[in-house]
Order: sequence, then structure tokens, then C-alpha cells
Amino acid sequence: MGQNEMNTDTICAMSTAPGGALGIVRVSGPKAIVIVSTLFASPTSRPLTESKSHHASFGRIVAPSGETIDESVVTIFRSPHSYTGEDVVEISCHGSRYIIERVLGLLIENGCRQAMPGEFTQRAFINGRMDLSQAEAVADLIASTNRATHQMAMSQLRGHFSNSLSQLRDQLLRLTALLELELDFSDQDVDFADRQEILEIAQATDKRVLSLAHSFHAGKAMKEGIAVAIVGKTNVGKSTLLNRLLHEDKAIVSQIHGTTRDAIEDTTQIDGVCFRFIDTAGIRSTSDEIEQIGIERTYRKIDEATLVLWLIDEQPDGALIKEMRQRCQGKGLITILNKIDKTSSPTPPSWLAELPGRHITISAKYDIHIDELERMIFEAAELPEISENDVIVTRARHYEALVRAHEDLERVIEGLGMGLSGDLLSEDLRSCLHNLGEIVGGEITTEETLGAIFREFCVGK
Amino acid sequence: MGQNEMNTDTICAMSTAPGGALGIVRVSGPKAIVIVSTLFASPTSRPLTESKSHHASFGRIVAPSGETIDESVVTIFRSPHSYTGEDVVEISCHGSRYIIERVLGLLIENGCRQAMPGEFTQRAFINGRMDLSQAEAVADLIASTNRATHQMAMSQLRGHFSNSLSQLRDQLLRLTALLELELDFSDQDVDFADRQEILEIAQATDKRVLSLAHSFHAGKAMKEGIAVAIVGKTNVGKSTLLNRLLHEDKAIVSQIHGTTRDAIEDTTQIDGVCFRFIDTAGIRSTSDEIEQIGIERTYRKIDEATLVLWLIDEQPDGALIKEMRQRCQGKGLITILNKIDKTSSPTPPSWLAELPGRHITISAKYDIHIDELERMIFEAAELPEISENDVIVTRARHYEALVRAHEDLERVIEGLGMGLSGDLLSEDLRSCLHNLGEIVGGEITTEETLGAIFREFCVGK
Repeated sequence: MGQNEMNTDTICAMSTAPGGALGIVRVSGPKAIVIVSTLFASPTSRPLTESKSHHASFGRIVAPSGETIDESVVTIFRSPHSYTGEDVVEISCHGSRYIIERVLGLLIENGCRQAMPGEFTQRAFINGRMDLSQAEAVADLIASTNRATHQMAMSQLRGHFSNSLSQLRDQLLRLTALLELELDFSDQDVDFADRQEILEIAQATDKRVLSLAHSFHAGKAMKEGIAVAIVGKTNVGKSTLLNRLLHEDKAIVSQIHGTTRDAIEDTTQIDGVCFRFIDTAGIRSTSDEIEQIGIERTYRKIDEATLVLWLIDEQPDGALIKEMRQRCQGKGLITILNKIDKTSSPTPPSWLAELPGRHITISAKYDIHIDELERMIFEAAELPEISENDVIVTRARHYEALVRAHEDLERVIEGLGMGLSGDLLSEDLRSCLHNLGEIVGGEITTEETLGAIFREFCVGK
Repeated sequence: MGQNEMNTDTICAMSTAPGGALGIVRVSGPKAIVIVSTLFASPTSRPLTESKSHHASFGRIVAPSGETIDESVVTIFRSPHSYTGEDVVEISCHGSRYIIERVLGLLIENGCRQAMPGEFTQRAFINGRMDLSQAEAVADLIASTNRATHQMAMSQLRGHFSNSLSQLRDQLLRLTALLELELDFSDQDVDFADRQEILEIAQATDKRVLSLAHSFHAGKAMKEGIAVAIVGKTNVGKSTLLNRLLHEDKAIVSQIHGTTRDAIEDTTQIDGVCFRFIDTAGIRSTSDEIEQIGIERTYRKIDEATLVLWLIDEQPDGALIKEMRQRCQGKGLITILNKIDKTSSPTPPSWLAELPGRHITISAKYDIHIDELERMIFEAAELPEISENDVIVTRARHYEALVRAHEDLERVIEGLGMGLSGDLLSEDLRSCLHNLGEIVGGEITTEETLGAIFREFCVGK
């Protein structure tokens, strides 16, 4: 405790959402136990200040006037064995907003301060209970709404990202040591550090840094929901297909709190991953100038999407095929022939195989091949395998630090090729170490950076 | 445990509202500890099943597949020292709905059942941890939004109502004993029980029962908000006054969950008590038949109100005064002369004192005498003193039982006057005891009654 001046005060906040059967008020800081004990009357005679760590006591929260505010269970966590590393008290009250406000009011009157958003987790970071990327994972975990976002956050909270960075750091330190060895004996014309070996280590390290950075594209998409545009001409069945794909999940998703999606976008989950559908107007090949403007708008929406579902109900003309092929370059594209219930032939028409992307025939109306389409959507998203041990970068802050680290390594590799001396290379290596260090917060992290990170937390965590 | 077959299964529910930093899952029943322990991995080697009561353990909730669902603090409360009286486990998770749903899913897969609304409290009642009126107070406490409703619920939870009933029961048992003594020796012509003494006890008991029953009118009004009608002719300043009285409290009140008020009614708090304003159209004395219909509607709204604020800006005519005096009989009435900023005289006009009810002069527009008006409103409501030791009946179920008990006692008193024999009087006394017993649930309470009481609870309590 006490590494930072901020830690000298005792903070309190409601840690649960208002409106439930229970409400938890959390208190952390050097005076947490003393302050709560003055407000706590227990049927047993033992005062809270003598309570063991991790012990829950039943009693009443009583105002100095003698008024009973609530019957509560109060749990003590003694420093350093607590979430923040400080003394922590959790007061479990009846979930009335009036009661919670009275309890917080009493705590503040008796020397606590209302906690800022994320301040408990910020203290956990400052007191070395977790590194910065783990602290960020706490916010992601609370916001997680599906298997994918949950597993990415859990992996990061459990330190898998930190461990990967720590391994990279070890390799960079080894590189630095080799180069410094070379430097120390440079006047003796002895080749201690094999430049080829140094190059290989630098390249391997850079490859891993790049691979982590690249995972950000999938990580970001999974966190925000994979953007899917459904395009096609009017009356081809776009809304029917959308309703099929959303089925009951829509209601479930809309109930979830803490999501930051645009309210009018529809999302669904396929195999635990969130897909976000972008509504578009019709498209077709036309020479009408005014109509062309509307169609351009649809094409711009395609640009935002990771995946495009091109819905057709007849063979499209060559110009449109060419246009779609061009517009969807670099994206997942599924060409879907709808209304197969209306055709007598059991096999897809031969021209379908000539169209760009993957192909499938469906009937949105009669729910034919919709499961197969969902599987195809999931595959076309080309998501990395996610299990709780995989490291996927989900934050722009981490991505940017990795990109800077990659640029540093590129300079090292280039310098090695040019035969630059070890002391010049060392500078880039130090910069690279610094950039990776910023992710876990081991390197000096400014108040400003910390403030920006913890501001996005909810109060009470 | 095990008084009731229901108690043989283990129940689970989320006890906090979704969306906070923390979410609490509560488990209760004979298998609570065993089931949670199979899902819990702790960094210390000690299994949860060996944990002491009231001990909080940090660890991970892990699915049988090995997937980590959350890092959680799990607290054990061993029977009978728990809320329900059964073994209880509280799992404190990160407040993501996804995580909570996964944890509940795992508990159910491993032998728990989703709890019904109020089922934890119902078990507390069945296991003798609290009586029925205290169980009902738990629901009221969670729903309390101001000092008045909070103190009424807290008093009831702490057993003050139960104690009053218990004293009444003792008096009734004494009466019964005296009458039975009389009966046993009736053939010996010895006057063991002084009929005058019996009558006095019966009358004193009835007086207390009636006084409790009468408190329901105030209790109900305070629970629902004291209904206040603001009446007056158009442009007299009704909306300006309403806005003054509501000031910032309106926003605060509308944030509070669990209130059952009509959304379009405005409420404010004066000295910790909720007042609910009823909007009315204008009134005035008129012979126009159509207009009279609208005015009748306003008068009907007055009937709903406990308190009437009659807003005027000039001397009303005699017919209207007569009408208002008649319409407001038995209600609190405050006649308010508005727009005093427009008059040059510093003293109220002499005719004001002649009008019915209390009187005050104000300027709604310039905020003159509004504090005084609020104080007058509070006084005119004639609320009983409320502190946490006072007993105020707030539930129709209790009121109805008290009224039935009063009717029984009336028959006893009447019978004593008529010289009825002790065995006939005893029957009414037993009925009275039964009716009072229903309130605390000591007498046989049917599944149906219990179901109706606990259905109104939130899930997780």
C-alpha cells in the first residue's frame, strides 16, 4: 500500500446495479474496516475491527442517530489479500436504492470518498495485484455478452497476453545482451555475437509481434460484432432472411446491458460469436443517374462490412457480377440464391457456381438451408480459434503499441542487414521494450494514460 | 431443515440486478455447498466442502469442460446460520449477464433448480428464521424509496409488529384462561372470573387492535404516496405551483426502481414522505351544463385525494366556497392565495381567513412561501409519528385480519354485556387468536396464501 498518494484515502461505491434483491457497497482503503465498524452493530459482541480476513458477519448498519438503515452481511478482506490489495469491506444490503444511498451517505460522512469509475481496479493495478492489460480485461469481462468476448477477456484476465509479452520481452533482453557483449569486445575483433543468430531472434520476435497485432482485426470485429451487409435487389427477400437469421436471439441480445452497439442495428449470435447486420437499400445494374446515387450508398455500406451476403433470386447480369466481384474484394462474400421453394429442380442452377464467393441455395420463407447458411457465415468470417488460452488483441491501445514495437524491430532487422553497430541497434531494442511494456503498464505510465483507461469502467469496479 | 418437502431441493438465482460491476448468484439447499464445490477451483488446496461457515474463498468457477467462467469470491453460510436456515452459498461474479447466465446454467446442470420469486425468503419463513409479517417486510424494504416506507418496513422486519401482536395474543390467552376457569367452576356458583375485569381486558385489547387497523390508512397512503389534488380555475398558476413543489426531486424519484406508481403521476418528497400529485382540470361555479360535466370530473378526483390544495388568485364567490367546503369534508384542505407578488399590500386580505381549511399566501412564480407551504402540506397530511419503533400497518392482508379480529372482539364484548356463557365467548376468542395468528403465519397458513405473498417478491430474495 501507499505507493501512490491516491491510496491514502478510503473510497466507497455501489458495486451492483440498482434494482435487485441485494445491493453490494464496496469500501477500500486504510480506514475501510474502522469506518464500517463504527456503523455496524452485530448481535455477537466481537467488533468488526477484530474480524479475521475473509469473514462475513451478520449485523445492522446503524446511523449515529441510532436509526437502523439495514440488516446486512459485512465481509472483511484484509490487505494485501483483497481485490485492491488494500483493506476492503463489502456490505451486502437489501437492494433498495434508498438504503444504498443512505449507506453510501453514512460512509462519506464518516470519512470515505465516492470512488471514481474503475478506481478499485486502478488501485489493484497500482498495488501490483494485476498488470494493466489484466485491469483492462476486467472491464471487458463485465461488458462481455457472448462466448467469444467472454473468452477473449478471460484469457487476458488470466494473464495469457501478459505471458506472451513477457516471453517477447525475454527474447528482446537476450538480443540486447548479445549486442552489448559484442560492443564490449568490439575492439578485440572477436565475434562473440553471431550476427546471423541475432537476426534470426529479431525476425522471430517480430513475427510474433506482428501475429499479435494482426489478431486485433478479428479481436475488434468479435468485440464489436462481425459486420455483415445483406445486399440484393428489392423483393429478393432481404428482410425475410434477416428475420430468419435473427430468430429469438434478437430479444436476448437487446436485454443485455453494457453493450455499446447502435440501437437500430440487429445482432445475432452464431456459435457464441456476435454478428451485426447492416441494413442496405437495393442494388442493381442501372444507367439511371439518380438511381445510381442510392446504389452507391449501398456499396459504401459494403465497405464497412467484413462479410457480404449477396441475395439473388435469378441469374444476375454480367455487369452486376463484375461490380460485386470488385466491390467485395478482400471481404468474405456469400452469394445466396433464395426462393428455391419456387423451383422444381432439386439441384442448383449451373450458373450459380460461376458467381463470386461461396454459394448456397435457400428458402428464407420456408426455413430451408438456414442452418447451413449460418455455418457458412461463421466459416466465411475466418475467425481465429478462440479458447481461453488463445491470445487475441482486442484493444486499439494494445494494437498501436504492438505496431510501434514492430516498427522498432524492423529498424533493428534493417540495421543488422546494414551492419549497424550494436549501440545503435540497442536504442531501437530499448524503444521496442518500452512499447511492449506500456501494454502491461510495467514501464512508466502517465496519470493521463491511466485516467483514460479507467474512465471507461463502471463505478464500483 | 426439512419441515417441508419443498426444502429437499437446492435452489439458485441471481440476487442482484443485471448490469453492475458485480453480480451475486445465491444458492440454498442441502446440496448447495457440494454442487458449488464441484464447479469451484481455488488456488489453495482446501475444498469448499471443508470451508468454515461465513468464510469467503477466492477462486475460479470452472465448467466440467475445463473452461473458466469467472474469477469469483464464494462465501459459505452453513445451516442453520444463514438467511434461509439451510446451507447457503453466495457466488460473487463479475456483473456480466453472460457470466451470470453461464454460472446459473452450470448450477442447474449440476442439480440446482431456478428459484421462484421470493423463494429464499419463503424458506427463511418455513425454517423459522422469521415470521410471515417479517418476510413481507423484506419485500417492502427492497421496494422502499424514502424514509417513511423504509422505516415502516424496517420496524416490521425488526419484529415490532410481531411483538405487538404477541402482546395481544398474551392478553387474549389470559381472557380465555379466565373464561375457562369460570366454566370449570360454573356449577359451584363461585365467581372466579370477575366479568367486569374480563370486559376491561377485552375492551383494552380491542382498542389496541382497532388502533393498529386504523394505522393502515396512513400506512397505505405513505406506501403509495399521499394523494394531493391541486384544484383551481385556469391560469391561477396550477402548473407553476406543481413545478415548484416537484423541483429536482422529480428526476430522482423517476430513477427509483420497484415503485408501482402510475408513470404519469408526479411525486415529490417532503421530509422523507412521498406525496403524489393528481392533475385536475379547472373548477369554478357555473350554470353551463356541459362545463359542469368537466367540473364534476375534477370533483371526483378530489374524492381520491387525501389532501386538497385549492389555488386562488382572487376572492372566490360564495357558491364555490360552499361547494369546496362540502367536497373537501374529511380531507386536509389548504386554500392558497397565489400571485402575491402582484399585490402591493404586505398582509393577506381579510376575506382569506374566512375560507375553509388552512390558509397561506404564496407566489409560485417567484418562489415566495413555498417552503412554508410544504411544511403546511406535511402537517395537513396528519401523518402518525414514524420512527423505527412505531408499528404502522401497511398491507391490506394485515388490515383485513385486524378488522376480523376486531369483529371477533366486538362479539365477545357484546356477549359479556348479554351475560353469555364462557364457552360461547371462547369460540370468538379462538377466532380472534386465529385471525391475529394469520398475520405472522404462526397459525396454519395454506400454500395458496403463501404463494400469493411470495409471488410479489423479486427473484433472488
